[in-house]
Amino acid sequence: MNHQTLKKMLEKVKDGQTSVQDALAALKDLYFEDMGFAHVDHHRSIRKGFPEVIYGGGKTVEQIACIMERMASQGDVVLVTRLDPDKGLALSGRFPQSSYDEQARMLVLEETPLPDKGRGKIVVACAGTSDIPVAKEAYLTAKTMGNSVDLICDVGVAGLHRLLAYRQALESATVIVAVAGMEGALPSVVAGLFAKPVIAVPTSIGYGTSFNGLTALLAMLNSCASNVAVVNIDNGFGGGYVASMINRG
Amino acid sequence: MNHQTLKKMLEKVKDGQTSVQDALAALKDLYFEDMGFAHVDHHRSIRKGFPEVIYGGGKTVEQIACIMERMASQGDVVLVTRLDPDKGLALSGRFPQSSYDEQARMLVLEETPLPDKGRGKIVVACAGTSDIPVAKEAYLTAKTMGNSVDLICDVGVAGLHRLLAYRQALESATVIVAVAGMEGALPSVVAGLFAKPVIAVPTSIGYGTSFNGLTALLAMLNSCASNVAVVNIDNGFGGGYVASMINRG
Amino acid sequence: MNHQTLKKMLEKVKDGQTSVQDALAALKDLYFEDMGFAHVDHHRSIRKGFPEVIYGGGKTVEQIACIMERMASQGDVVLVTRLDPDKGLALSGRFPQSSYDEQARMLVLEETPLPDKGRGKIVVACAGTSDIPVAKEAYLTAKTMGNSVDLICDVGVAGLHRLLAYRQALESATVIVAVAGMEGALPSVVAGLFAKPVIAVPTSIGYGTSFNGLTALLAMLNSCASNVAVVNIDNGFGGGYVASMINRG
Amino acid sequence: MNHQTLKKMLEKVKDGQTSVQDALAALKDLYFEDMGFAHVDHHRSIRKGFPEVIYGGGKTVEQIACIMERMASQGDVVLVTRLDPDKGLALSGRFPQSSYDEQARMLVLEETPLPDKGRGKIVVACAGTSDIPVAKEAYLTAKTMGNSVDLICDVGVAGLHRLLAYRQALESATVIVAVAGMEGALPSVVAGLFAKPVIAVPTSIGYGTSFNGLTALLAMLNSCASNVAVVNIDNGFGGGYVASMINRG
Amino acid sequence: MNHQTLKKMLEKVKDGQTSVQDALAALKDLYFEDMGFAHVDHHRSIRKGFPEVIYGGGKTVEQIACIMERMASQGDVVLVTRLDPDKGLALSGRFPQSSYDEQARMLVLEETPLPDKGRGKIVVACAGTSDIPVAKEAYLTAKTMGNSVDLICDVGVAGLHRLLAYRQALESATVIVAVAGMEGALPSVVAGLFAKPVIAVPTSIGYGTSFNGLTALLAMLNSCASNVAVVNIDNGFGGGYVASMINRG
Amino acid sequence: MNHQTLKKMLEKVKDGQTSVQDALAALKDLYFEDMGFAHVDHHRSIRKGFPEVIYGGGKTVEQIACIMERMASQGDVVLVTRLDPDKGLALSGRFPQSSYDEQARMLVLEETPLPDKGRGKIVVACAGTSDIPVAKEAYLTAKTMGNSVDLICDVGVAGLHRLLAYRQALESATVIVAVAGMEGALPSVVAGLFAKPVIAVPTSIGYGTSFNGLTALLAMLNSCASNVAVVNIDNGFGGGYVASMINRG
Amino acid sequence: MNHQTLKKMLEKVKDGQTSVQDALAALKDLYFEDMGFAHVDHHRSIRKGFPEVIYGGGKTVEQIACIMERMASQGDVVLVTRLDPDKGLALSGRFPQSSYDEQARMLVLEETPLPDKGRGKIVVACAGTSDIPVAKEAYLTAKTMGNSVDLICDVGVAGLHRLLAYRQALESATVIVAVAGMEGALPSVVAGLFAKPVIAVPTSIGYGTSFNGLTALLAMLNSCASNVAVVNIDNGFGGGYVASMINRG
Amino acid sequence: MNHQTLKKMLEKVKDGQTSVQDALAALKDLYFEDMGFAHVDHHRSIRKGFPEVIYGGGKTVEQIACIMERMASQGDVVLVTRLDPDKGLALSGRFPQSSYDEQARMLVLEETPLPDKGRGKIVVACAGTSDIPVAKEAYLTAKTMGNSVDLICDVGVAGLHRLLAYRQALESATVIVAVAGMEGALPSVVAGLFAKPVIAVPTSIGYGTSFNGLTALLAMLNSCASNVAVVNIDNGFGGGYVASMINRG
Repeated sequence: MNHQTLKKMLEKVKDGQTSVQDALAALKDLYFEDMGFAHVDHHRSIRKGFPEVIYGGGKTVEQIACIMERMASQGDVVLVTRLDPDKGLALSGRFPQSSYDEQARMLVLEETPLPDKGRGKIVVACAGTSDIPVAKEAYLTAKTMGNSVDLICDVGVAGLHRLLAYRQALESATVIVAVAGMEGALPSVVAGLFAKPVIAVPTSIGYGTSFNGLTALLAMLNSCASNVAVVNIDNGFGGGYVASMINRG
Repeated sequence: MNHQTLKKMLEKVKDGQTSVQDALAALKDLYFEDMGFAHVDHHRSIRKGFPEVIYGGGKTVEQIACIMERMASQGDVVLVTRLDPDKGLALSGRFPQSSYDEQARMLVLEETPLPDKGRGKIVVACAGTSDIPVAKEAYLTAKTMGNSVDLICDVGVAGLHRLLAYRQALESATVIVAVAGMEGALPSVVAGLFAKPVIAVPTSIGYGTSFNGLTALLAMLNSCASNVAVVNIDNGFGGGYVASMINRG
Repeated sequence: MNHQTLKKMLEKVKDGQTSVQDALAALKDLYFEDMGFAHVDHHRSIRKGFPEVIYGGGKTVEQIACIMERMASQGDVVLVTRLDPDKGLALSGRFPQSSYDEQARMLVLEETPLPDKGRGKIVVACAGTSDIPVAKEAYLTAKTMGNSVDLICDVGVAGLHRLLAYRQALESATVIVAVAGMEGALPSVVAGLFAKPVIAVPTSIGYGTSFNGLTALLAMLNSCASNVAVVNIDNGFGGGYVASMINRG
Repeated sequence: MNHQTLKKMLEKVKDGQTSVQDALAALKDLYFEDMGFAHVDHHRSIRKGFPEVIYGGGKTVEQIACIMERMASQGDVVLVTRLDPDKGLALSGRFPQSSYDEQARMLVLEETPLPDKGRGKIVVACAGTSDIPVAKEAYLTAKTMGNSVDLICDVGVAGLHRLLAYRQALESATVIVAVAGMEGALPSVVAGLFAKPVIAVPTSIGYGTSFNGLTALLAMLNSCASNVAVVNIDNGFGGGYVASMINRG
Repeated sequence: MNHQTLKKMLEKVKDGQTSVQDALAALKDLYFEDMGFAHVDHHRSIRKGFPEVIYGGGKTVEQIACIMERMASQGDVVLVTRLDPDKGLALSGRFPQSSYDEQARMLVLEETPLPDKGRGKIVVACAGTSDIPVAKEAYLTAKTMGNSVDLICDVGVAGLHRLLAYRQALESATVIVAVAGMEGALPSVVAGLFAKPVIAVPTSIGYGTSFNGLTALLAMLNSCASNVAVVNIDNGFGGGYVASMINRG
Repeated sequence: MNHQTLKKMLEKVKDGQTSVQDALAALKDLYFEDMGFAHVDHHRSIRKGFPEVIYGGGKTVEQIACIMERMASQGDVVLVTRLDPDKGLALSGRFPQSSYDEQARMLVLEETPLPDKGRGKIVVACAGTSDIPVAKEAYLTAKTMGNSVDLICDVGVAGLHRLLAYRQALESATVIVAVAGMEGALPSVVAGLFAKPVIAVPTSIGYGTSFNGLTALLAMLNSCASNVAVVNIDNGFGGGYVASMINRG
Repeated sequence: MNHQTLKKMLEKVKDGQTSVQDALAALKDLYFEDMGFAHVDHHRSIRKGFPEVIYGGGKTVEQIACIMERMASQGDVVLVTRLDPDKGLALSGRFPQSSYDEQARMLVLEETPLPDKGRGKIVVACAGTSDIPVAKEAYLTAKTMGNSVDLICDVGVAGLHRLLAYRQALESATVIVAVAGMEGALPSVVAGLFAKPVIAVPTSIGYGTSFNGLTALLAMLNSCASNVAVVNIDNGFGGGYVASMINRG
Repeated sequence: MNHQTLKKMLEKVKDGQTSVQDALAALKDLYFEDMGFAHVDHHRSIRKGFPEVIYGGGKTVEQIACIMERMASQGDVVLVTRLDPDKGLALSGRFPQSSYDEQARMLVLEETPLPDKGRGKIVVACAGTSDIPVAKEAYLTAKTMGNSVDLICDVGVAGLHRLLAYRQALESATVIVAVAGMEGALPSVVAGLFAKPVIAVPTSIGYGTSFNGLTALLAMLNSCASNVAVVNIDNGFGGGYVASMINRG
């Protein structure tokens, strides 16, 4: 029940077309309907420039295709994450307007790309070349969500000059997504240099005591710079998503 | 060496007052001077509305007082975090213009409070009454950093109606700081309901397998809602700080 | 807004006393009102024989007393858990009708004890004498929630005959709460012997690699007997609470 | 030695047919016989409506088939869990009356399905579509054990309205099995809304710091709602089993 | 019901003094009685030279005194472990024949010390002077249990010559208890040099990543020498107990 | 250099046949020679009835074959552990007198089996059928090392009567090796019933929070029965080896 | 901008060829240029005898080849680490002057090997034959970096005589790299015997609670010998690299 | 028995002053004496400029005083680490020539300070003021061991300019000890900038997920710069000790 149907019902009550009893019965479930509203509200706010997102991990091609069809039929921009190459190719074959990025393991289906409604620019920076897949997931997410995004690679702390060479780009960002594995020090250094919100994305790059990204995550959570918040390991999508929220304003 | 002194030196080179050799020697260390510039820049950007922050944990009253004096002499707003009551009282005695909040364990010294330069409002919400100290640390941090802040307490997920009663306040926020211990589910629910960046702050409230907040932290990092980023356990300060950065725009 | 006020408003719409516009505005927030209903429902169902519970950990005597007063004024049975002796004594002094159990660290305030509405009997069994405080918390919780409860102590697996001596009592239970620290084997053995739901409560009794109850918890989660479900370490309250729910029917 | 043989022996002692010495010797092993009784008792109580269960993990097709044959020959309903598809197909080929569910990885062999002897209905609810295999394991277990069961999918906390739409079904349950991965918040929310025993089943769905379900497990153990008890990660079978015990009454 | 009472009852059945019906009723619980036998057996075998042991941790002086009295009245040798000095002094005051060892935190009450029934000698060796309390707990346990025991201190692997100086003593042992904290390498080296069963006892000596003995424990479990078995951290009692069992033969 | 050669050298010094200088040089390396002695002693004691053992994990067929040849040439009994089936078959092809056990993943090469020199019998008991591979590794190790060994399978604590049916066999053992996965409760129950040294072997059988055997290990280390010592997860070899040492006397 | 271009610019300012304004603008970025200098400095110091290193893990053959070409064109010695055999063969095919070591998984490309500039000799010692791949990585790294290196294998602590037989080689080293898995005791023993800096490299050799090298790492970090510092698990490269730095002087 | 006493004894054997029998008896322990040599050698090499070190943690004042007396009597420089202030004061009262440093918790007793025999200078740098105690422990250790040492404080990565201001000092070091808590990024940045061996010392400074220094430790072990080796958490002593070894050359 939405605003229109509610209004109509009230008018029918007023006009005597609907009895108080029936209206009462109808409103009895309004709570759920309201939750339905909330649902719609939620979706509406999300569709204010955000694509629909499907978590591809652990879903079959059939399941994903089914959800995509329902969404695409409503003209939504659709983002599928954590999609293995074989599934990605199968789906991009079925949805010819879609494009699959193997590095980011993402499928994007956007007939009408979302317009840029951001307050400014998002910069995604990653420490090593091995972190690029995660960084690209963040980059593609933010881009598909309607943002201007820069991607800066291989600027880890073992060679600070590489990072500093991009000072201007980083200084101009509304929010920085800093992606790093191993000791995960990039967000600390970036956040120390630039007074911006820094979304830190730990990656599983490393071996031994990197514990598949746990060390990078812990380091980021303990940053001595205070303008750092963290998302899950290898969660480039989350990093790009939160950054988009922040940039939207 | 700042812009003025650099310009003067170059003019002296032009006028022959300084030899190329001497200028070369002076510029030899410019790199450091430049880093000095960066230092100043860094501070300047931080002082653009942000207080100086001293991490009180593991420092003596004498050490803190010494740093505070140097800062206060420059007219800075000063924030001391993680300050035990005995130290807090000792310092607030020595700095009569300062005020100590025992719950948040923070000392604030602000002769001239920072003006509100935020794009909108920050809302800090916490799950239980036991989470209030951490929530208040976030609240005070954001407030001292020059933001309009709301504090909503005891709206945990075991009684959803309590949270929903504050829907309007939450809907109107630029950024939400969600504070919770135990199973740490509040940020997931909040982020599912409101399309805002949510900074999740896990607290050490709980016992047994709460592992002093680790469980809440892990839950928040694994939120099925994508607009959540997380800071360290009990890091109300960090939550308020990142939210301020986001709200600044 | 409850059923009555909603009916009245609809009647006013019918009678033209309230315009469709105003009714629409009033119903705009119905969602929250409905959640308010849910709230009442929730509480009502809980009060169907269950006491109000206050988690005493990390709350001041003042905070607890304040909540107790509000509850007691409504005639509720009140249970305060995790209450240190000094707070317990202070509060039992302020609420003379209440009684404080130092072992269970619980305060019970019940002017009119809840009647026994259980389907049968709950049996709480613990492995060692050191587990008694947690077992007693489960016992008192279940008892205060209106159940017939038996407490059997010191029946750990290193001396099986002790456990088997209570076979009849255990066989007659609707649900068994099995409390154990160290290697936490009691629930497995109990659940192997009796075809009952067994709620396992690990305790922090032990040292070294007992890791404050983690070992017992893990053992219980991996029980080779399938009729075991587990609550948090030292969570005697939770064990008694779930058992009450199960016994209620 | 059962009641009859024991009685006969005592009568022979009375009649002098058996000497005290011989009776003493026979009774010396009664303990074991009694344990044999216990064994029979145990089985009898279990067979009062529960199927025999074989843990398929780490067993060969040959081993499982051998056990199944012995059980089936006694007319037992047999449940095999954790059965990989290849083994499942091999076994369902050998036992034509059996049926294999690939999602739940379970094989059910029931010539005469168990009658529904439950006090009421069990509801199994899961948070995401990726949790369905575990939820289905719980569903099939409870169903095979002779219960009326509902299965509700994809009602995670990031979209509360989806969950609330099933309020009636959940309200009518005797016991709820709540299945979730990632941050594992579903049981907390469900247990906050419905005054029922909630058996929480964490799943290994997620990545990074979900630690293969550990995060969901920890969150569930720390639920701020008290009517939650937890089973092992991905242990849908255990969840359905405990729920059946509870529903049996 | 013991052998005597059972015999008597059977004789009464024979003599007609007890009816078959009554004997049947009495024997109905024989299972438990049998378990009682097992209990007695168990105790008997334990008393074949082993003292009764009370775990003092988490018990009050009153509880311990009460158990001690019951045991002492039966002439048992009594060992109380994990006894804090204040409790130890209080109890040794109450039991004048007892002696309390503050280092080992043990109280021994033995009117008639157990005779040495061991096959040979037990050697307890510890790595550093800080490990002495745990080593002494092992030493006293083994000694009180009726063994010939040697205690060798401060023979850690950083100075191998110290260990080798005791080669003769170690070579002559039936079983060696090797106690070490920090990196816990002593058992590996000892087990490499001497073809004896080595019971390794990790201690909580160390800091940082010693994790209160976890590192030593893990090292011992991974010994490249195969004749090593391990007990819990700081479990000198367990080390001495197992060694006694092995030495008994 | 042994006693004789040392004596001879000293006599030569006395007789002037060897100069002080040369004696000094010879004695300079005596330390190593002595260590050489130790080496020989060590091997001698080990060869007093124990086979040579090769850890097969991470070694190539070539490496293993090479070591085996050197050993076999000296008439040693050779045991290769952790040998994958493909390597096992390759090696048993090359050493026709050897036999490979696929369950235990062990290769045994014994031209002349070691005679039984044990004090008594070793009993290996395992909880479930899935634990048999590890139990068999313990069994084969102990057997090859010259012991009389019994293997008892599927006697886990969820059905105590199964265990108790083997009471006589267990009572007659010199040492018991208890093998279990999941909650690892078997050693506690066994050690509570029988006053024998119990070597507990945790297995990686289980899922979720069994953490590949860690839970079983922790439970065993925290056994409330004191006569338990533990070896590494899945270390059937170590369990059999330590038991052999204990049985040797 | 280097010394020459800076000098030229200053001379142009002096001569009036460049305005103060333009010089100011050019110097504005000097900071970065200086960092460029630092970059060059850094590289220069590294090239003073150290090869360029490419972390091969997670990079494609194409990516590695591309970097190698750029480096090789400058005459650099190139080291590629963590290179799987298939990639290693592909690359050694493309760079015929390079050589690939399958055990160490390293590719070395050195037209002109670096001269030995070390103060002395580096000794790499490993505990077991399974540790050889990691030890060889350390060996090859140190060798390629221009050092005299010895490799000693299979000298674990379970047979101390093996280690002591190499006393002279170890005594003569400038720095020792000690490589071990399992309980990781080798560095403690080595560091106790020789007053040298010992770089400990834990390996992932072991099973169960070796936790893929974590146990060895923890043991090494807790060495009771003080002259030990540790690198990451299986980080033979790091061990060889740090040792080279130390040996360079 | 040292070289001189051995030579004398051999000469007495030659001269007939000592019988072969007596020499044999004396040499019987030569092996151990040889180990004594090793011991003495070890000590000698250590005394080549290194003080004797006593780990004060867990030792009584009496125990420490006793060891100190034995050492001081031999003219050794003595270092006591991990000494609580009360013990430190008690001991410095008893040894008037000693000095106690409360920050470093070290007691130094050096009648004749060791001469500087280092190849160059050691630089100890720490990230925050809270890390100073650990840094000072490293500083004092290295200084007492006879090195020229610089101590640089508060140069953490959140303000890189502070670190770079000390570039010259760091560039001139033979070895750098980098001390940091929280995210532990300092060693990575330092090792990236300076081609020196960097000994990283993690500190327990931080809260929440700093896990008492574990996060800093893990970060350091995963440094993307290769010239980093790590010691235990808060092990300033170890850092200073290894650095001294490296600097000695």
